[in-house]
Amino acid sequence: MEAKLQVGVLGFGTVGSGVIHILEEHQEKISQVTGYHISVKKVLVRDLEKNRRYETKGFELTTNPSDVLDDPEIAVVVEVMGSITTAREYILQALKAGKHVVTANKDLIALHGDELVAVAQANNCDLFYEASVAGGIPILRTIVNSLAADKIQKVMGIVNGTTNFMLTKMTTEKKSYEDVLAEAQALGFAESDPTNDVDGIDAARKMVIMTRLAFGMNVNLDNVETNGIRGISPEDIEVAYQLGYKIKLVGTAEETNGTVNVNVGPVLLPKAHPLAGVNYENNAVFVTGAAVGETMFYGPGAGELPTATSVVSDLITVAKNSRLGTNGNAFNSYKHETKHTPKEQVFSKYYLRLTMDDKTGTFLKLTQIFAEAGVGFDKILQQPYDDFTATVVIVTHSTSQAQLEQAIARVKDEPEMQMLAKYSVVEG
Amino acid sequence: MEAKLQVGVLGFGTVGSGVIHILEEHQEKISQVTGYHISVKKVLVRDLEKNRRYETKGFELTTNPSDVLDDPEIAVVVEVMGSITTAREYILQALKAGKHVVTANKDLIALHGDELVAVAQANNCDLFYEASVAGGIPILRTIVNSLAADKIQKVMGIVNGTTNFMLTKMTTEKKSYEDVLAEAQALGFAESDPTNDVDGIDAARKMVIMTRLAFGMNVNLDNVETNGIRGISPEDIEVAYQLGYKIKLVGTAEETNGTVNVNVGPVLLPKAHPLAGVNYENNAVFVTGAAVGETMFYGPGAGELPTATSVVSDLITVAKNSRLGTNGNAFNSYKHETKHTPKEQVFSKYYLRLTMDDKTGTFLKLTQIFAEAGVGFDKILQQPYDDFTATVVIVTHSTSQAQLEQAIARVKDEPEMQMLAKYSVVEG
Repeated sequence: MEAKLQVGVLGFGTVGSGVIHILEEHQEKISQVTGYHISVKKVLVRDLEKNRRYETKGFELTTNPSDVLDDPEIAVVVEVMGSITTAREYILQALKAGKHVVTANKDLIALHGDELVAVAQANNCDLFYEASVAGGIPILRTIVNSLAADKIQKVMGIVNGTTNFMLTKMTTEKKSYEDVLAEAQALGFAESDPTNDVDGIDAARKMVIMTRLAFGMNVNLDNVETNGIRGISPEDIEVAYQLGYKIKLVGTAEETNGTVNVNVGPVLLPKAHPLAGVNYENNAVFVTGAAVGETMFYGPGAGELPTATSVVSDLITVAKNSRLGTNGNAFNSYKHETKHTPKEQVFSKYYLRLTMDDKTGTFLKLTQIFAEAGVGFDKILQQPYDDFTATVVIVTHSTSQAQLEQAIARVKDEPEMQMLAKYSVVEG
Repeated sequence: MEAKLQVGVLGFGTVGSGVIHILEEHQEKISQVTGYHISVKKVLVRDLEKNRRYETKGFELTTNPSDVLDDPEIAVVVEVMGSITTAREYILQALKAGKHVVTANKDLIALHGDELVAVAQANNCDLFYEASVAGGIPILRTIVNSLAADKIQKVMGIVNGTTNFMLTKMTTEKKSYEDVLAEAQALGFAESDPTNDVDGIDAARKMVIMTRLAFGMNVNLDNVETNGIRGISPEDIEVAYQLGYKIKLVGTAEETNGTVNVNVGPVLLPKAHPLAGVNYENNAVFVTGAAVGETMFYGPGAGELPTATSVVSDLITVAKNSRLGTNGNAFNSYKHETKHTPKEQVFSKYYLRLTMDDKTGTFLKLTQIFAEAGVGFDKILQQPYDDFTATVVIVTHSTSQAQLEQAIARVKDEPEMQMLAKYSVVEG
């Protein structure tokens, strides 16, 4: 007789119902692969009345978390309720009760991943979170298992679907930031308060998780320089395009001599770069390894079924481990002392756009400021902005972050100059 | 004290030396992840003299296979010698001696994979072959583990670097087939006898392997309709480009109602399709799942270090299994009865190019032939070829393979018409 693996689901939003759908739809394949009949026994909901139509589906609805967390028949808890404090509390309770946990909660894993991993190990439980980064793309498992043989040098990710949708629309339809934000909100891609997406916070959390797996280092969000897309003008997109680039919101984690730098911000990508072709709400993660070279993993970054697929893949791994008696081994065992790359050793080319008073001597002063900071110019475009002001676009040579910041601080001191945009430029 | 896992390597070509290089270079990470010091004890070579400079490297060279296969201290055999008959024999001997096997041999796995898997299981041994498909891209593990939760509907792969290099050059530099073949040979991308690559045989073998994992079905090479790139003219590439497509050699495995169709041939891809941006010697596999939607895995398809990375990833999995005591579980446990989709149910749009006598009535006859077969036209271009002949390019509506073959057989009967090219067209 086939063994049973019973699941409790915390939260019944889109991902939760997607998990239930996939477990039903693909039952035959899942049983064959795992040797288990995986089924949902109970679902924690906020409001019983609202979900009454699901009552005949073969699982029980409850508003009491203890019904799930204290049920000895439930071997695995799937947390898809979101939030941080409550989710953390429930997951800790589940792990301490010896239940395996699968979560899609990037905020929680970015902030409390280490604590949860330790508690899982202490209780011989599995803790997986594939769905927390890049929805349907199995990027975490790929980094941990398939790229284990390699020394990863750099991870670049388009890991926020909302902002990628907005930037794609701004590029292809030449719309303004405000218009595409309204459109994304109308389509349900952006929330009414879009802060987490458009300011790069969501992407930064995902980069913290990938940095832990790719480099074995624990970086705090405070140490991730995070810039969003609010300031991007159609003019930036147009000028970048003319120079041969597309602007994307990219998270970058790069290793240099045993140190790591993680940042999130708008980046100019050469049009032929594989990441430049990732459009709309799709995600992709571009990984450079010392041996393998350049690889990219592309797919839907969000959505009910793609995200639920990742959750169910994790459930399948829990089931396989249960069959083999190998639960409780840490998903990731690669650890290094966390060291941050000093600003003097973080190098990039930069795209800068600024306005300045259109009078003799100002441009000379600008070039002097950059020359004194040791920042060289690769390209310069100057155009009249209005009768009294000129717009200057600069693409620098590769320069250290420290040098660039020195130049920018000097520009800020000059009343006749105003820095409007500063984005990294990736070489082809 | 750290446990030791000793490896015997069969073959000392580029991949073999890449494996040795990576095991040395990334020793620290590999130990941390597996708990094992993985090292090469012996390497089987053809000629001791030629390899004498490696003698101080800490491993032994031998020309006698028994030195490797009968050494009780060698726990894992890595087969990177190529060929079929001898490699099969050595691998069977290793498995029967209780050694785990990692191989990069796509020809062997495509032809004898089932037999080898059965012998491995009977002897409680691991048998992994990630490097056999798409070099550095961890596509097999992704299909088996990460997409296990999903029902895969279609796998499309650019899995032959040589032909992709050639088609990229033909497209971007408008060169002839003969010129780019000579260039690929000079660069070492193509062999002096390029048959396996340019006729699609190499790609077909890789599709057989992926079909086994994605659909649980065993398809013989005889059942894979295989067309290569020899017949592609710069004219086809040019016309396709004008119509909005790029031509790539694509292997396709698609499931329809419990049946599968696998084929390899030149395909017209819309320029915005993610596979259309895969250039030069790179590979990519585009997977469509019922739940996850469209995902793509991109990277180097060959080369010393990328391929060796996949071999070492497999070695790491063997080591992890050894630590957990879980060796000998089949890599893939998903199996279905193999059924082929009848030609009446294999649908595609097609690009056809033919020449015909430029005289009244011939074009009418052509349209009648296609109308009688039930094949509709989406686009037609007619151009004079010389004084007496016209070139006609047709893009059909979606049609069954049976209908198309009926029309083509009728065209062959007409002395005034000559079919020059027939490629599938993928919709955007």
